[in-house]
Amino acid sequence: MNIKPDCLVCLFNQALKTTKLLNLDDETSAKILFEIAKILPNYSLNYTPPQIAKDTYKLIEEITNNPDPLSKAKEISIQEAKKFKPFLYEEIKNSDDKLLTALKIAVAGNVIDFGAKKQFNLENILNEIFNTSFKIDDYLKLKEQLKIAKKVVIIGDNCGENIFDVILADVLKSLYDIELFYFVRGKPIINDVTIKEANESDMPKFATIIDTGVPTPGYDLKYANEKSKKIFNAADVVIAKGMGNFESLYQITNREVFYLFIVKCNVVASAINANEKDIILCKK
Amino acid sequence: MNIKPDCLVCLFNQALKTTKLLNLDDETSAKILFEIAKILPNYSLNYTPPQIAKDTYKLIEEITNNPDPLSKAKEISIQEAKKFKPFLYEEIKNSDDKLLTALKIAVAGNVIDFGAKKQFNLENILNEIFNTSFKIDDYLKLKEQLKIAKKVVIIGDNCGENIFDVILADVLKSLYDIELFYFVRGKPIINDVTIKEANESDMPKFATIIDTGVPTPGYDLKYANEKSKKIFNAADVVIAKGMGNFESLYQITNREVFYLFIVKCNVVASAINANEKDIILCKK
Repeated sequence: MNIKPDCLVCLFNQALKTTKLLNLDDETSAKILFEIAKILPNYSLNYTPPQIAKDTYKLIEEITNNPDPLSKAKEISIQEAKKFKPFLYEEIKNSDDKLLTALKIAVAGNVIDFGAKKQFNLENILNEIFNTSFKIDDYLKLKEQLKIAKKVVIIGDNCGENIFDVILADVLKSLYDIELFYFVRGKPIINDVTIKEANESDMPKFATIIDTGVPTPGYDLKYANEKSKKIFNAADVVIAKGMGNFESLYQITNREVFYLFIVKCNVVASAINANEKDIILCKK
Repeated sequence: MNIKPDCLVCLFNQALKTTKLLNLDDETSAKILFEIAKILPNYSLNYTPPQIAKDTYKLIEEITNNPDPLSKAKEISIQEAKKFKPFLYEEIKNSDDKLLTALKIAVAGNVIDFGAKKQFNLENILNEIFNTSFKIDDYLKLKEQLKIAKKVVIIGDNCGENIFDVILADVLKSLYDIELFYFVRGKPIINDVTIKEANESDMPKFATIIDTGVPTPGYDLKYANEKSKKIFNAADVVIAKGMGNFESLYQITNREVFYLFIVKCNVVASAINANEKDIILCKK
């Protein structure tokens, strides 16, 4: 999905938010914004948001001299998410439709973004999402395809969220006779899950972790390594988490993907004819 | 008041909002944002927000080939504001403290910003402001000074708001034996009041309209013509409306000014130790 003018402002604003999260002084924050302003005109409306975000965050890394500026925020998000595991496994245990519940849990995890910055009440959000229907709902199609699937890919998104993905992976493995892969970014980019955080979670018990090599906050086939592309293309079912993966793959890949995310901006909302805050399970 | 990093993002966002108000296509909107991104690194934290806004809006004028891109929005704001005149004069008539009521009306007018864009309920806001105290309240000082003042300046801000300023001017002239001046921008800049809109209002009945020559959305002494500076310096009382004038004068001019505005952003809020949406009547 290519950017809209709004995305340029959003990327600039995200950089500001990051400087605040990092408690940078005004001079350093301004330097980051000025350097980002300098590179923005190198793009056009033919880029995806994650392709530009890759470069804006690279500037933040360079100017702060920190290859993983959001490491602390990622850690906090993961710690917070872990606290919910007993509650979530109880929900799964009591559920009549464990796959649906696990998908709801996985999509709820998508609200964990910039962990420490925004004080959200995850418990309220979880209860809300359990009682909300997918605005675009291809659940039955996904369920049908999982029944005959042999290889399944989950493309991870943010840290914290990745803990909830483990529950989805656990449920998928317990319900279906599948080989499961969990895709992660090739390097720290924003608060996205990399091989480090995936290996530190319980995900390796249920899925083979695949370092996709992408430096983008979305699984971008232009940057993906051959290994991940082979698995991506050969999989019977791909579940892509979060807006970054949606933006990187939607209207770009020919293969069918189930997109599982919360709509967080008006540009994506209008691209899929939904509203901000809607939860989406959309086959395309 | 110099910019903070937040202002860079805000200026970029304001440009996007303007492209939407003008219903520009994505290509033109992106062009405007890319061109603004190109010039932002020319500034530093030593500029005021209006100094940069002058140049970002100039790019919008150039790219849209329109010397007054927001003329329609200004016109709508003025028409909307005029509808409230009978109601507001009734408030003045029934008021025990006509000066205070007129100042509240004038500050309420400051919510009229980008007229057509945001559907605000002006009547609710007016009633709310009548029942709200100034967060910083130098009303008694202003009242004392007006009693002995001979020359008074109101520095205008936005269109629409200027209609409410007429009521303040009317009340000032009826209560005090003063010579009154109403300052306007030297050219169309955003939705600010220029000599055109001031002359089309009833303001000339109560005040001498002064075209200050400034191309900035704030009365900036660097750009102000000699005539306006002479009146500004000689005045016994100056009332500066809105954040743009505050940003251009606060901590810059040596002369005493009464700033009358609604706090619309966290940067100004923190500069004066107030909160967003607070109403301010602050002598500095």
